[in-house]
Amino acid sequence: MKQTHSEAGRERGELALLAEIRHRAAYATGLGPKSGLRLGIGDDCALLKPRAGEELAVTTDLSIDGRHFRLDWHQPEAIGHRVLARGLSDLAAMGARPVAAFLSLGLPRSLTMAAAERRRKRSRSWVQRFLDGFLALAEACETPLAGGDLAESTLTVADIVLVGAVARGRALLRSGAKPGDLLYVTGALGGAAAGLARLIEIVSSAGPNPPRIPKKLEALLAPHLYPQPRIAQGLWLQRRGVASAALDLSDGLSTDLAHLCEESSVAAEIDASALPIHPAATLDQALHGGEDYELLFTAPPDTRLPRAIAGVPVTRIGRILKTRAGRPAMTLLSSHGAQPLEPHGWEHFC
Amino acid sequence: MKQTHSEAGRERGELALLAEIRHRAAYATGLGPKSGLRLGIGDDCALLKPRAGEELAVTTDLSIDGRHFRLDWHQPEAIGHRVLARGLSDLAAMGARPVAAFLSLGLPRSLTMAAAERRRKRSRSWVQRFLDGFLALAEACETPLAGGDLAESTLTVADIVLVGAVARGRALLRSGAKPGDLLYVTGALGGAAAGLARLIEIVSSAGPNPPRIPKKLEALLAPHLYPQPRIAQGLWLQRRGVASAALDLSDGLSTDLAHLCEESSVAAEIDASALPIHPAATLDQALHGGEDYELLFTAPPDTRLPRAIAGVPVTRIGRILKTRAGRPAMTLLSSHGAQPLEPHGWEHFC
Repeated sequence: MKQTHSEAGRERGELALLAEIRHRAAYATGLGPKSGLRLGIGDDCALLKPRAGEELAVTTDLSIDGRHFRLDWHQPEAIGHRVLARGLSDLAAMGARPVAAFLSLGLPRSLTMAAAERRRKRSRSWVQRFLDGFLALAEACETPLAGGDLAESTLTVADIVLVGAVARGRALLRSGAKPGDLLYVTGALGGAAAGLARLIEIVSSAGPNPPRIPKKLEALLAPHLYPQPRIAQGLWLQRRGVASAALDLSDGLSTDLAHLCEESSVAAEIDASALPIHPAATLDQALHGGEDYELLFTAPPDTRLPRAIAGVPVTRIGRILKTRAGRPAMTLLSSHGAQPLEPHGWEHFC
Repeated sequence: MKQTHSEAGRERGELALLAEIRHRAAYATGLGPKSGLRLGIGDDCALLKPRAGEELAVTTDLSIDGRHFRLDWHQPEAIGHRVLARGLSDLAAMGARPVAAFLSLGLPRSLTMAAAERRRKRSRSWVQRFLDGFLALAEACETPLAGGDLAESTLTVADIVLVGAVARGRALLRSGAKPGDLLYVTGALGGAAAGLARLIEIVSSAGPNPPRIPKKLEALLAPHLYPQPRIAQGLWLQRRGVASAALDLSDGLSTDLAHLCEESSVAAEIDASALPIHPAATLDQALHGGEDYELLFTAPPDTRLPRAIAGVPVTRIGRILKTRAGRPAMTLLSSHGAQPLEPHGWEHFC
């Protein structure tokens, strides 16, 4: 969005798009001392002004058509929302407040050049609808869109960069879990995987092009199409200093817990009967389904936690153990006894 | 590089690649209080610790096969160098010192999965050679690789994010040029365009696959293949407070000067006979050729500037004028008199 690089060679429609993004970004999310963003779109770099005593958290996530979303399955608004939610969820996992987002878009000409034509018909282009979804979440999470890049591409790609701020030395890391700590998750598990499974059914019967989602199914698909990054919950945990380790559930509980165990050099056990399984999901989806974007965190056993943080339930699902020869890194306790839990692959769409 | 998102579904070769990047990034560029990077690859976010009184500059640049580079024209080392140079040049243009880089890579499996096979043959994979070029420049510019993302893709894409630091209120902006200011550039102009033209000749005769560049042509192609971001020069200008406006020449002098004029609400005139044209380049390449990554800056007329900054020549090429009805935004003075200068398109490769 900084109006450099190949812009001179751009068609009028693309320049109009840049101007539109700049205008809409300023309108939706703004600059200002509150956000910490001092200079947004329009120069070689954006400028951020951290508060005294703060560190900055930075994360990038690359989303690619066919792998992280599908143009023929997902409405553009949902793709825009999901691209930003991935990045915001990483900030939530560190207990950081969002300061600014940067978006690099590689788009086929068909998704941008159609804009002028469609304007005459008073319908919106793909990229305009993508921005509708992106900026609605940005506004809800008070995250200004501060810059990015735009290029023509034969494949649709979106790289999202999030910059957040957190008090020095207070960020929630993956590496702080101790044997004896208890293991918690926010929200419900498996809802995104269940929603995706249902979307695949709808797509299979509807044929190509993103299907219109029937009203009565919207709630069922929402955890997949419009996941909610747990910014408020991450901030709550960080400010009270109660979590010893945290990360967000992007790849699925079994895979992400394995990361936590590895980075903290601990083992863990999970109680299947305690899992807050989404009403539409199976145990398998709750254990291995990706993209729920809930927070997984640990806290010392004497920590008192509320039943909900900022309106989202918190559930104790297991505990942290010492690593020991012969003990699996992760164990699942159920009515069938104790079984080793393996990290299962989350394959996205291809 | 943070080991999330679809990683569980990744092949062993890709996980090995992640581990290799983490290891090489730490070795080549390191963490440490000096850099301002407190936590690098491995958690949900990297953590940066700004110094008191500093602002952070952030920029992202998306590079796509067929548009910003070509797999069949460019050696992987040159692509890695160029991807990073684009981002560093934006920091240079703000007068910022590099703090951290983040790299998102979308790669076809052929560029990563070949690694294991090639290791047996003791040759290096495409992505290893890409990292050779990337990390050599990162090390030279003391820029730690602090994170990123990695995904399989049918198209090769690389999004680079640079975070830099600059004293509060001291960043070099595009918007500060005043009528009467003089206009300067670092280095020589048109060398990248001349190098690209020569590369196209070589490719045309060599057929597909990146050609080996003959030793005697290396110097001629260097401005295109290995442009040098002017970090030291940008820092010099910022610390002495002598430049009223600055940006980097990525799209070509005529296009980038138009940006400066627009953001500063001024006009400009350039003296063709004063331009530091690269020995291999034409006037046209110097005026309109992109990707030289030199700095274009303005300074008040009473400013004394040295002939070179950190070993790179500085040349006065024109001056800033008031905008006036009937006056073109940019004028070129030459032996043919005064002519309007139009921003010419820089079309990359497609």
